[in-house]
Amino acid sequence: MKNKSKLKIADLGEFGFISWFSPAFTKNLPPQLTGIGDDCAVIPWRGTKRLLVTTDLLIDGVHFLKDKILPADLGYKSLAVNLSDIAAMGGTPRWAFLSAAIPPETEMTWLKAFFSGWRHLSSRTEVYLLGGDTTRSHNNLVINVVVLGEAQEKLIKYRSGARPGDLVAVTGNLGDSEGGLRLILQNSRKHQLTSREKYLIRRHYLPRPQLEEGQFLAHQPEVRAMMDISDGIDSDLRRIMESSGCGVKINLENLPVSPALRHCCRKYGWNLEEVAAAGGEDYCLLLTVNPKNFSTLAARFYRRFGRRLRAIGTITANRGKLVYLKENRLVKLKKTGYDHFSLRSKP
Amino acid sequence: MKNKSKLKIADLGEFGFISWFSPAFTKNLPPQLTGIGDDCAVIPWRGTKRLLVTTDLLIDGVHFLKDKILPADLGYKSLAVNLSDIAAMGGTPRWAFLSAAIPPETEMTWLKAFFSGWRHLSSRTEVYLLGGDTTRSHNNLVINVVVLGEAQEKLIKYRSGARPGDLVAVTGNLGDSEGGLRLILQNSRKHQLTSREKYLIRRHYLPRPQLEEGQFLAHQPEVRAMMDISDGIDSDLRRIMESSGCGVKINLENLPVSPALRHCCRKYGWNLEEVAAAGGEDYCLLLTVNPKNFSTLAARFYRRFGRRLRAIGTITANRGKLVYLKENRLVKLKKTGYDHFSLRSKP
Repeated sequence: MKNKSKLKIADLGEFGFISWFSPAFTKNLPPQLTGIGDDCAVIPWRGTKRLLVTTDLLIDGVHFLKDKILPADLGYKSLAVNLSDIAAMGGTPRWAFLSAAIPPETEMTWLKAFFSGWRHLSSRTEVYLLGGDTTRSHNNLVINVVVLGEAQEKLIKYRSGARPGDLVAVTGNLGDSEGGLRLILQNSRKHQLTSREKYLIRRHYLPRPQLEEGQFLAHQPEVRAMMDISDGIDSDLRRIMESSGCGVKINLENLPVSPALRHCCRKYGWNLEEVAAAGGEDYCLLLTVNPKNFSTLAARFYRRFGRRLRAIGTITANRGKLVYLKENRLVKLKKTGYDHFSLRSKP
Repeated sequence: MKNKSKLKIADLGEFGFISWFSPAFTKNLPPQLTGIGDDCAVIPWRGTKRLLVTTDLLIDGVHFLKDKILPADLGYKSLAVNLSDIAAMGGTPRWAFLSAAIPPETEMTWLKAFFSGWRHLSSRTEVYLLGGDTTRSHNNLVINVVVLGEAQEKLIKYRSGARPGDLVAVTGNLGDSEGGLRLILQNSRKHQLTSREKYLIRRHYLPRPQLEEGQFLAHQPEVRAMMDISDGIDSDLRRIMESSGCGVKINLENLPVSPALRHCCRKYGWNLEEVAAAGGEDYCLLLTVNPKNFSTLAARFYRRFGRRLRAIGTITANRGKLVYLKENRLVKLKKTGYDHFSLRSKP
């Protein structure tokens, strides 16, 4: 066994680390507060309203590659990934805070484009930038975004609401963002990209936070648990299992994938199911639904958004067990979701 | 003139950069919101209450030196500097969010000590940690802290309240933290430090956020403007001048300094007034007071806290002009306050 006094954070991984430190901060929390462990913290607000708070730290070389992403796309995405957390609780985003550690040689034209991308999304969603902190960085660009939002207490969907028998569903295609990332990392000459490839790259750089979908689903009592897909369903489902004390069975043939991703998987020899299940940053919503009401919910979702709500599996009583089935046979996936402390070379 | 298209952020400096991007975000703000430009953002809350939000980004090598500071002190200080912003508005801190990008080789014993330092302060101030984000860092340790607090609308003190004729006052000694920092940077063998030197270093590592003082002063109508001293009064007074559209005259002989700092300035040949006026991170409060009521306020402050409220200068109508007087003669200080984009080697 590893010498405990020399244990390093890389040995625990991101989620091991969170499990290690969070009990000290969650055990004495007043009951009306939700702290560490969901997409947002939930704080009593005016009357029946609750304040939602989420924050994401983005580092050049870990979460993005400054030399590959357009500054406007980075500005957009820095805000979008936080809005997605508000969407996951069914809330409305209101106010944002942006902190950045910026290398001194950064050109103002780059920063101008960054802000234009941010504002493209913030003005559309009416999210006001109210503050932050700026400083120089000796090394990489570092961005921290905080978004505050609000939601009706009774409508908030938590990760802890899943019950055995619930259907697991997603609101969009899976794996597009991971496909886009793979193309970015393998391709240096952009003009040779096909339109399908450009589509996947756009899905990686410009995820749409599903705020309308989140608010619609928050109003449906048959939706029992919800979160956004940021680390890939393989990782994100584990968060639901931990919070709800359940297991999950996923039918791989039901994972919704885009024709573009299917095409690129064939072209480049990627394993389609692994990309769809373990690829991160799709930023659509993952939810569990009372099975009795799934078909009427799916019909209403289709009428409202013109897209299918896709059932991809079932919640089980088999606590902590995530299994994948393909044509009713158990299969193992090689690749699991993101861990920001692991050393695989994901930007 | 510099080619505008190649203008870099280092050419503007931190405050130039903030002035450059913030108008786009403040011009259309609803009137009940206070955004960029004060110690905290102010957001409507329940009834007459307001939500205060502040955030600080701390980078190894810019704001601290991981190899020099004890992890417990860093945990304490990361929270303290944010609580100081809440104190500056006269608020009560409630909830905190901690994001960290951590090098993978960081030992868990180091992180345990970091959290113990954080909790030492958070439990004393009843500030709950409700969330954050953790990720690996390829380079330096990066810490971002957000604190939410609350205050009565009518009691909040802004930077914009100063009026010509107001006395400028501070709630504590100036320059101790800068003195401590100089000792840290020049000294490698701790056992040779005198007790006065240890005192200054402690003042640098363990600043006390002046929450009680801030709340007391918030209740006094004669206090017209307030902020905390984070970058040194030379820099911080410029923020008050900008927000209030005024000037400031400082009497250098009135700057309160500790016997320990006075001693070390003699011992090491530091310019006492420059250290006191331009040294950052004292985290006491800087305020402007209606001159008619200053002596009764100072007397009440002394009765409550057993320390003097020190008048150090006067607000003038000479917009944007900060002048220093010594025995009624104008003097120039060589060193000005911190700028996090400038290239001087301040950790």
